[in-house]
Amino acid sequence: MNILDSVPEPSEDLVKRASQVKRAAIELSQTTDIQRKNALNLMADALEASRESIIKANLEDLSRSEAAGLAAPLLSRLLLDDNKLTKAIEGVRQVAHLGDPIGKRQLHRELYKGLILERITVPLGVLGVIFESRPDAVIQIASLAIRSGNGSILKGGSEASFTNKTIVDALMLGLQKSDVYPECICLLTTRTESLGLLKLDGIVDLIIPRGSNELVRFIQDRTHIPVLGHADGICHLYVDNHANITKALEISIDSKCQYPAACNAIETLLIHKDIALEFLEKAIPRFNECGVRLLGDNISTQYGIENEASAADWSTEYLDLVLAIKIVSNLEEALEHIRKYGSRHTDAIVTEDISIAEKFMSSVDSSGVYHNCSTRFADGFRYGFGAEVGISTQTLPPRGPVGLDGLVTYRYFLRGDGHIASDFASGQKSFSHKDLN
Amino acid sequence: MNILDSVPEPSEDLVKRASQVKRAAIELSQTTDIQRKNALNLMADALEASRESIIKANLEDLSRSEAAGLAAPLLSRLLLDDNKLTKAIEGVRQVAHLGDPIGKRQLHRELYKGLILERITVPLGVLGVIFESRPDAVIQIASLAIRSGNGSILKGGSEASFTNKTIVDALMLGLQKSDVYPECICLLTTRTESLGLLKLDGIVDLIIPRGSNELVRFIQDRTHIPVLGHADGICHLYVDNHANITKALEISIDSKCQYPAACNAIETLLIHKDIALEFLEKAIPRFNECGVRLLGDNISTQYGIENEASAADWSTEYLDLVLAIKIVSNLEEALEHIRKYGSRHTDAIVTEDISIAEKFMSSVDSSGVYHNCSTRFADGFRYGFGAEVGISTQTLPPRGPVGLDGLVTYRYFLRGDGHIASDFASGQKSFSHKDLN
Repeated sequence: MNILDSVPEPSEDLVKRASQVKRAAIELSQTTDIQRKNALNLMADALEASRESIIKANLEDLSRSEAAGLAAPLLSRLLLDDNKLTKAIEGVRQVAHLGDPIGKRQLHRELYKGLILERITVPLGVLGVIFESRPDAVIQIASLAIRSGNGSILKGGSEASFTNKTIVDALMLGLQKSDVYPECICLLTTRTESLGLLKLDGIVDLIIPRGSNELVRFIQDRTHIPVLGHADGICHLYVDNHANITKALEISIDSKCQYPAACNAIETLLIHKDIALEFLEKAIPRFNECGVRLLGDNISTQYGIENEASAADWSTEYLDLVLAIKIVSNLEEALEHIRKYGSRHTDAIVTEDISIAEKFMSSVDSSGVYHNCSTRFADGFRYGFGAEVGISTQTLPPRGPVGLDGLVTYRYFLRGDGHIASDFASGQKSFSHKDLN
Repeated sequence: MNILDSVPEPSEDLVKRASQVKRAAIELSQTTDIQRKNALNLMADALEASRESIIKANLEDLSRSEAAGLAAPLLSRLLLDDNKLTKAIEGVRQVAHLGDPIGKRQLHRELYKGLILERITVPLGVLGVIFESRPDAVIQIASLAIRSGNGSILKGGSEASFTNKTIVDALMLGLQKSDVYPECICLLTTRTESLGLLKLDGIVDLIIPRGSNELVRFIQDRTHIPVLGHADGICHLYVDNHANITKALEISIDSKCQYPAACNAIETLLIHKDIALEFLEKAIPRFNECGVRLLGDNISTQYGIENEASAADWSTEYLDLVLAIKIVSNLEEALEHIRKYGSRHTDAIVTEDISIAEKFMSSVDSSGVYHNCSTRFADGFRYGFGAEVGISTQTLPPRGPVGLDGLVTYRYFLRGDGHIASDFASGQKSFSHKDLN
């Protein structure tokens, strides 16, 4: 029984188109920083020139989707009005200005006289990107892909099909005026194609799902290709008994309420038993003001929380104004809870005791571990990356908020002058392994 | 239909043991460089002290396996004699001396006054290692794991069970005298357990298969956990028409014959048509001398190669003294062949024309691309890494020969003093994003 038995084989046509993207991407990988910057600016110009037709196509998608009964939040994500489009075009120009992630030498070593090893960052190759709704994401991802020298195969939701097609046509028109082949971008339109994409091992190097946790999980379960993303964001805040109550209050309100639909919002608040009563007396009214529904364990319900948490709550990502609260006896119990229920995204501690903070930060193996600040800072823009491809909860790099650097890999280049291994195996020659500045 | 439906659920006992390794690994991740160095030296001492019982256990395994009809090459890999054991123990002390891969600061940035972001290398957590035969590999991997701060769950072949048990007992005895918990290492013994290991997502962070291509493929097909390794090593050497014939001859003989069972040996030789006759006239007798069976395409068979290659030969990893030979019209055809049949391991060109060499090296997206040297250099020791965990043909890092650095990841540490995101969202504060030294 193989992982891929349930996924249909990619059609001949899909393999052909994907191979075209791959070939174009190999050319793209050899362009200079300036050529890729120019390409992005020409893409932005072309979007500008197609502004009217993009907005018109979006109106068609909207009315069609409204008639089909698409839910209001999805309709609002589907909407691409003048304002959103302006921001998306600005975004393309901003990505053009980011530093080049490729061509960086990470290692430069003489193995033997005249035998020189280099390790240099190169593009991944071809990205497979699967979107739900938001057509502005197509613009963002296409520009990140070109900037980092990668081809991209884009599959948008059917509800956004007119908009996506008009956008991709514009982007390709822009690329036609540049030194980058327009074939570096390819738009898929059917669901069968997007399933086939999952089986393009050897052509597609990374899959980036942009949508719900369900979408990410669905894809992770059906492909051998690495997937950049996270299926869950179950973040914790632990209020230690040495916490400053004011800081703990502000940080918990911010971590839950500043934007509850984000993956870096907390879902569970752990509170040390010695500070629980004092903290909750002040926190409950504040959470109530913000409209947060609190679910308590059997101790915290005695401290004024009305609703009881069920066992399932500790592993639920609400993405909403709901917060589970648990009282713990000590740091160890908090750590054990996070180990058991966390998703290795971002977890924070509030305490004035540095040694407890350090113990927490070295023991929690999440991609982000925070002391005395809000979990909402876990974000590529806030980290100063200039762009965010996604947030990965994988252990292996790239993990956490991933910027342009997450779209590159490296290659070993070895240059010699007839050097052969048997001279070294026989002991006739020996390696110098001398690092060159 | 989920990828894991075919894999049995891990038993309660396995989950319990694995969780124990995870907990011990969290403690291990907080040890100092010196503590881990000492632990390795104590492991080496303990192996030394158990030398007799290890060799005795190995003799038992050997006679049992011989009686069971194990093939001769496997018996020779199973053998752990005094000499091999001495080398393995030396290896542990060498790993102790390698530089510490953890605790390296990769990023240090002020996001705002008092809000400091760091990105620091940390161990992956727990490695799941599955071996075939070679019991000395258990010693090597266990020491690499401890050196890099990782726990390890080891599953050896049943043919080596006495040897592996005696080795792991000795290693744990050594750890008992150190600051590292012996529970950081755990040996599995049954096949059901090793299958369950594949489903320990969230506990095991990386699976390292050490064995045949079939073993690697079997594992890759049955787990969501990242797998470090390569299922295939189909390496190419392209002899360009501007090649120096002498260099081309020596490099092709070395790349094929120096150790044909290695994954970095070439399986296919591509030759430019304009140099093919001259090159093959000299190469065929040399390959014959070395006992290499040559399989030619329809052109090269006219140039004196007796056996014809079938379509399947271009994608076969012989791991033996067999070499497929194809004549190509130009560089493009060579690149297309490598793109189609290569496994992105290591591919080389022989040419005196620098621009053709550079075109080759920037167009082949294998983890190693070589100019005028043997593919046999693709090896962690030869690269100067001091140790090799494996060679990865994945696109994402770590790729190519992977040393100790491939067993670490990073974590973002953010330290503030009550900082909340809404102050930045409201525009009241703005990020400084100032890199610190």
